[in-house]
Amino acid sequence: MLTDWIIEKNNFEGSDIEKHGSKFLLGNGFMGYRGTMEEYSAQQLVAVNLAGFFDLADGSNWRESVNAPNPLYTVVAVNGTDLNLSELTPVSHSQKLDIKNGIHTRETVFSVFGVNVTIKAERFLSMSSENIMALKYSISADNDVELTIRTGIDKNVWNISGNHLNYVSESSFDNKHILNCETVQLKNKLNIYETVIGLEDIKNDNLLHISTVKLQANTQFEFVKFGGVYHSEGIINAEESFNAAVEIGYEKLKAAHCLVWEEVWKNSDVVIEGDDEAQLALRYSIYHLCSIAPHNTDKCGIPARGLSGQVYKGAAFWDTEMFMLPFFQFTDAKAARNLLKYRVNTVEGAKRKAKEFGYEGAFFAWESQETGDDACTLFNVTDIFTNRPQRTYFKDKQIHVSGDIVFAMWDYCRTTGDYTILVDGGLDLMYECLWFYYTYSSFKPYKNRYELLDVVGPDEYHERVGNNAFTNIMVKHAADIFVQAIEVVKANYPQTFKVFNKDLTWAYDFSEKLYVPQPDDRGIIEQFDGYFGLEDVTPEVLKTRELKENEYWGGHGLASETMTLKQADVIMMLNVFRNEYSAEIKKANWQFYEPYTEHGSSLSACAYAIVAAEIGDTDWAYKYFMKTASVDLTGNTKQYLGSLYIGGTHPAANGGAWNTAIFGFAGVSFTNDVLDISPRLPKNWKKLSFKLNWKGEALTITISQNVVEIDGVKNTKVTVYGKELKKCV
Amino acid sequence: MLTDWIIEKNNFEGSDIEKHGSKFLLGNGFMGYRGTMEEYSAQQLVAVNLAGFFDLADGSNWRESVNAPNPLYTVVAVNGTDLNLSELTPVSHSQKLDIKNGIHTRETVFSVFGVNVTIKAERFLSMSSENIMALKYSISADNDVELTIRTGIDKNVWNISGNHLNYVSESSFDNKHILNCETVQLKNKLNIYETVIGLEDIKNDNLLHISTVKLQANTQFEFVKFGGVYHSEGIINAEESFNAAVEIGYEKLKAAHCLVWEEVWKNSDVVIEGDDEAQLALRYSIYHLCSIAPHNTDKCGIPARGLSGQVYKGAAFWDTEMFMLPFFQFTDAKAARNLLKYRVNTVEGAKRKAKEFGYEGAFFAWESQETGDDACTLFNVTDIFTNRPQRTYFKDKQIHVSGDIVFAMWDYCRTTGDYTILVDGGLDLMYECLWFYYTYSSFKPYKNRYELLDVVGPDEYHERVGNNAFTNIMVKHAADIFVQAIEVVKANYPQTFKVFNKDLTWAYDFSEKLYVPQPDDRGIIEQFDGYFGLEDVTPEVLKTRELKENEYWGGHGLASETMTLKQADVIMMLNVFRNEYSAEIKKANWQFYEPYTEHGSSLSACAYAIVAAEIGDTDWAYKYFMKTASVDLTGNTKQYLGSLYIGGTHPAANGGAWNTAIFGFAGVSFTNDVLDISPRLPKNWKKLSFKLNWKGEALTITISQNVVEIDGVKNTKVTVYGKELKKCV
Repeated sequence: MLTDWIIEKNNFEGSDIEKHGSKFLLGNGFMGYRGTMEEYSAQQLVAVNLAGFFDLADGSNWRESVNAPNPLYTVVAVNGTDLNLSELTPVSHSQKLDIKNGIHTRETVFSVFGVNVTIKAERFLSMSSENIMALKYSISADNDVELTIRTGIDKNVWNISGNHLNYVSESSFDNKHILNCETVQLKNKLNIYETVIGLEDIKNDNLLHISTVKLQANTQFEFVKFGGVYHSEGIINAEESFNAAVEIGYEKLKAAHCLVWEEVWKNSDVVIEGDDEAQLALRYSIYHLCSIAPHNTDKCGIPARGLSGQVYKGAAFWDTEMFMLPFFQFTDAKAARNLLKYRVNTVEGAKRKAKEFGYEGAFFAWESQETGDDACTLFNVTDIFTNRPQRTYFKDKQIHVSGDIVFAMWDYCRTTGDYTILVDGGLDLMYECLWFYYTYSSFKPYKNRYELLDVVGPDEYHERVGNNAFTNIMVKHAADIFVQAIEVVKANYPQTFKVFNKDLTWAYDFSEKLYVPQPDDRGIIEQFDGYFGLEDVTPEVLKTRELKENEYWGGHGLASETMTLKQADVIMMLNVFRNEYSAEIKKANWQFYEPYTEHGSSLSACAYAIVAAEIGDTDWAYKYFMKTASVDLTGNTKQYLGSLYIGGTHPAANGGAWNTAIFGFAGVSFTNDVLDISPRLPKNWKKLSFKLNWKGEALTITISQNVVEIDGVKNTKVTVYGKELKKCV
Repeated sequence: MLTDWIIEKNNFEGSDIEKHGSKFLLGNGFMGYRGTMEEYSAQQLVAVNLAGFFDLADGSNWRESVNAPNPLYTVVAVNGTDLNLSELTPVSHSQKLDIKNGIHTRETVFSVFGVNVTIKAERFLSMSSENIMALKYSISADNDVELTIRTGIDKNVWNISGNHLNYVSESSFDNKHILNCETVQLKNKLNIYETVIGLEDIKNDNLLHISTVKLQANTQFEFVKFGGVYHSEGIINAEESFNAAVEIGYEKLKAAHCLVWEEVWKNSDVVIEGDDEAQLALRYSIYHLCSIAPHNTDKCGIPARGLSGQVYKGAAFWDTEMFMLPFFQFTDAKAARNLLKYRVNTVEGAKRKAKEFGYEGAFFAWESQETGDDACTLFNVTDIFTNRPQRTYFKDKQIHVSGDIVFAMWDYCRTTGDYTILVDGGLDLMYECLWFYYTYSSFKPYKNRYELLDVVGPDEYHERVGNNAFTNIMVKHAADIFVQAIEVVKANYPQTFKVFNKDLTWAYDFSEKLYVPQPDDRGIIEQFDGYFGLEDVTPEVLKTRELKENEYWGGHGLASETMTLKQADVIMMLNVFRNEYSAEIKKANWQFYEPYTEHGSSLSACAYAIVAAEIGDTDWAYKYFMKTASVDLTGNTKQYLGSLYIGGTHPAANGGAWNTAIFGFAGVSFTNDVLDISPRLPKNWKKLSFKLNWKGEALTITISQNVVEIDGVKNTKVTVYGKELKKCV
């Protein structure tokens, strides 16, 4: 049964443990807590994954985000037998995620020594106090039974690439445990607080409270726990912050938490009438975006797997700007600005990277952590046939990231109306990005044009190609944007512009002469120089050529010399620059490239969905929308790349689902600062309603079969195509 | 025992068959005949390999040189048992190659049915009549015995990549067989003539003469055979040519043949006193060069494996210009000019290649056949782990070939004094080559320089690198040469220059601003951008990492991300441009790069030998010289690349041996048109004597321990360093 706000699973299969850790994830921007049982430990991939806190384990090849010790660890034993779901087949089990309130619950009945023992647990990561997590735990049984409860801080947490923490000190007093750690590489402090309320006769041992409870039949025994996780500046007031949370108490803390979520949904909910499945999938996508957004910091981006673990090193990719940022800029401009400011704050890392590869300016990281230095290695895949590290070119050739950031920053400015980011480091960032491209580019005097050679586009199966359409067009726009941004700053912040007294002749020349691949006679834009000459085979054919499962198709793999693509590339470009290509061009390219696209990345489907909607093919659009919106519900994604685990949540797809609803189905776009709406709803959708912040105006847009209603309009010019417009001021 | 002119093997091992086919090779420029026994067939790799005659077999991936049917096929049987060395263990066996006269002999004693039968055979490919081969065959026995002799044309020839011939007609008359064939792909005619003289009561069957001989004990039965191989224009007078040869008769034909060889040696012999081993090895190298040179045609180059078979498709590589041409330009200017004219004749193929890859001008082939189109495929290696074709970049990224040709042409001009090649298409060729480089290059405005990015240098283990030192310096010289050549043509052939009325501003700009990597603080020239940052391991270490024998170390193989090199690259550059780098720079680079060099190519050792001699390290120079000079004597070279057979003769190494003797040990060089001689003979060499044609003067140079004698000097200015000079006019 589908409900609007509850994700649930009402039985238990051991094989779900890995998947459900991501599916039932809690997050509050500061940290994520995987959807694991309270009694689970490292083997079941328990993780309190920290945003923006990274470390290199001894002997490891890469830095990754740190998973904190788990302060909610709790296990109940009967006669020495632990009631552990991963070990004991339950009588019944259900797990629920309330996405409206960000609350995780479980209810499990174990049968042990002839007694049925019921465990109920409810937990949340506080949205009102980001360092705090809380748990309510209750036990009942159908017969008298003696329980031993062990609860405390579990150090045994999941790590993909080695141990990250040294334990500096431990203290236990007043039913409280404090574990002070520091990271292995940089000796950064991480302190964990924990307390339990409602247990008696506690023995404290090894960061655990141990208590024996004589439970009477059909009564309920309940206790609550608080956990506090502190690092960086948060360390200073840790004690105070944690004590305050405990003081407030579980129920009030929960109420405050729910209030924040209510506020979040007020700005970001999208209501679909007539399609419960799509409604839940889209809300679930929005839930993920809101629970991992950096609400209170501009020190970190959003990792490619959200806060579901250390996959992809906890690093931020171009995914943030290209797939997630639109959602934030229209629903939570503060988070959007934080994300952009994070890039401004890490521009020095991008400059170091450019230098490392022989260029100048800012070459933004493929995998960005706290400093902006690239966390990606040059050997990011293991060859499945030889077990040797395989040279990949994600790091040194996927140059479009800097342009993506420039583009996203400008898009933020023009849709929010907030151009202050430009003088808060934004224009400097743009300058450095463009200068990087200028130093990367090849001028071809005999063609009087700049080219971008030896790059990797979004479709990573084709490495080291020339004039990748997506990349060239993105960089061309970045150059144009830079030139426009200079004018904005000149006009509005003349003082800043005076400081910015560099010779910019090159930028105008580059913007004028950078080559942009054009549609051919058929209207098709070649993905890169020579793409049309590659072997003409589709993913289905390649699949039959596989010698091993999980073969990597890129690099020297099966796809690289064929027309098969990993993910949307030209289609992504048509999606990003939707106002610049006609429906005919979009249609021609969609039909041409679709059969060659493997969708081996969760970034792919939404681009196909949006462009399908734009060319009026709502059936295909709906199919790809549902694929995107339900990626973390079904968990049916690639779990391994060669031998590398790549599972987790997919916030870019979550963002892509929202983008599809708003830009695809609602048909929202912005031409010359006019808000255009060209709705093309899926057949079964009766109504689509959502909020948009547009230059400071909080618009509510409701699209039904014949009418578009817009509430909150002040100065915005709106044009609606194909339906009647009702405006409410 | 070493003799000066005889290569011999006095026993038989079955495992030698493949190797000896190359070691005992005969050639006359028009064709090669492998050192196989007369009774051998395709299984023993018999080949009459044709220069400049190519075909694509049905279903094959590449074109290769054609092997003609074998007109010298002869087998003797006793009581139905064939006296076939590959099947019957002999009583004794010896095989000899007389390199002074280009004559192959064998003497084999077989014991069969209690009788010892001795086979003697002598054969040669006529140097005076290139289409003709001849065989003298004699049989004796220590008891009366009845022999069945089968001799004729054997169609069953070795092919690496499929059958190349359709048989159009066969005729037999007057003890003569004629087999008219045409190639499978282009239907080019190939006609084979054969006759036997001295056999009686012949039955002709299936292109064989079959004759029974009652041989009396201790008498000798002898017959002779002639073969004629005709294609292209040669076809027209085939009958006449063949009949004339038969008419002349075996002994007179042999005498004429030997006379040509005598003439050849008069111009090209190098005499070493005090080191028989080196003497034989060097003469053997010179023998190979002279026996495969295109004496009478400018329609073909010299294949990388000479005329020893179809390996590397019978195609010409940069090897010709960089390793062999110096020998010819100083000893046989006509052959040298033919080789250069072949490049002029195939410039249209090079222009087609440039266009295919998106450039303009002439991009000379990695593997050049009769048209100049590139015979190399984009998948030139099979992955040994997956059995899949592996994308290689020999064809599209090894761009230095065009520059090598320009350089070689200019070197030919200035050392022979013959500049006519410039107006015979040479200057146009230079223009097209330079224009190609201009279109390939990347101008970097912020550095105000042109760069050559995404190339493969001579060291093929590192693909797609930037600013390869060898390539950049070669192209820089090519640009300078082009600019100089224009002046020469302007001054000497004003009419031609008027025709050549193109705007050449770009060429001067390119010549001025092309980036050339310079030595660093240590004097080391980085092989390409980023080479110093690769993993610091030597070939010995890589060897221990191999998972399979014959792993290809390039591509995505073991060497590509390490400092290990396949072959001399920077050292090759120091060798080619020997007058531009100091001994200190040469020494620093030799010592730096030597440990990283695998010498996985036979082109490598001679560059190390010459530079070692130049820096005064004659021990190392000698070691690498002997490795080079004896490569085809020992046959100890890589026989397989992945699963691809790459055995055969190594004319580039043969040329490299001569280069080492002349440029390394004799220390010949040309600075500002003065002939410099800085001898540094190996310790055990008492005397080194050789001929050099220098601007039309036939110099004889003799270097002994204290004196340099030069005979034949007219206008040449000579400077000798470190020894006394005696000049004889």
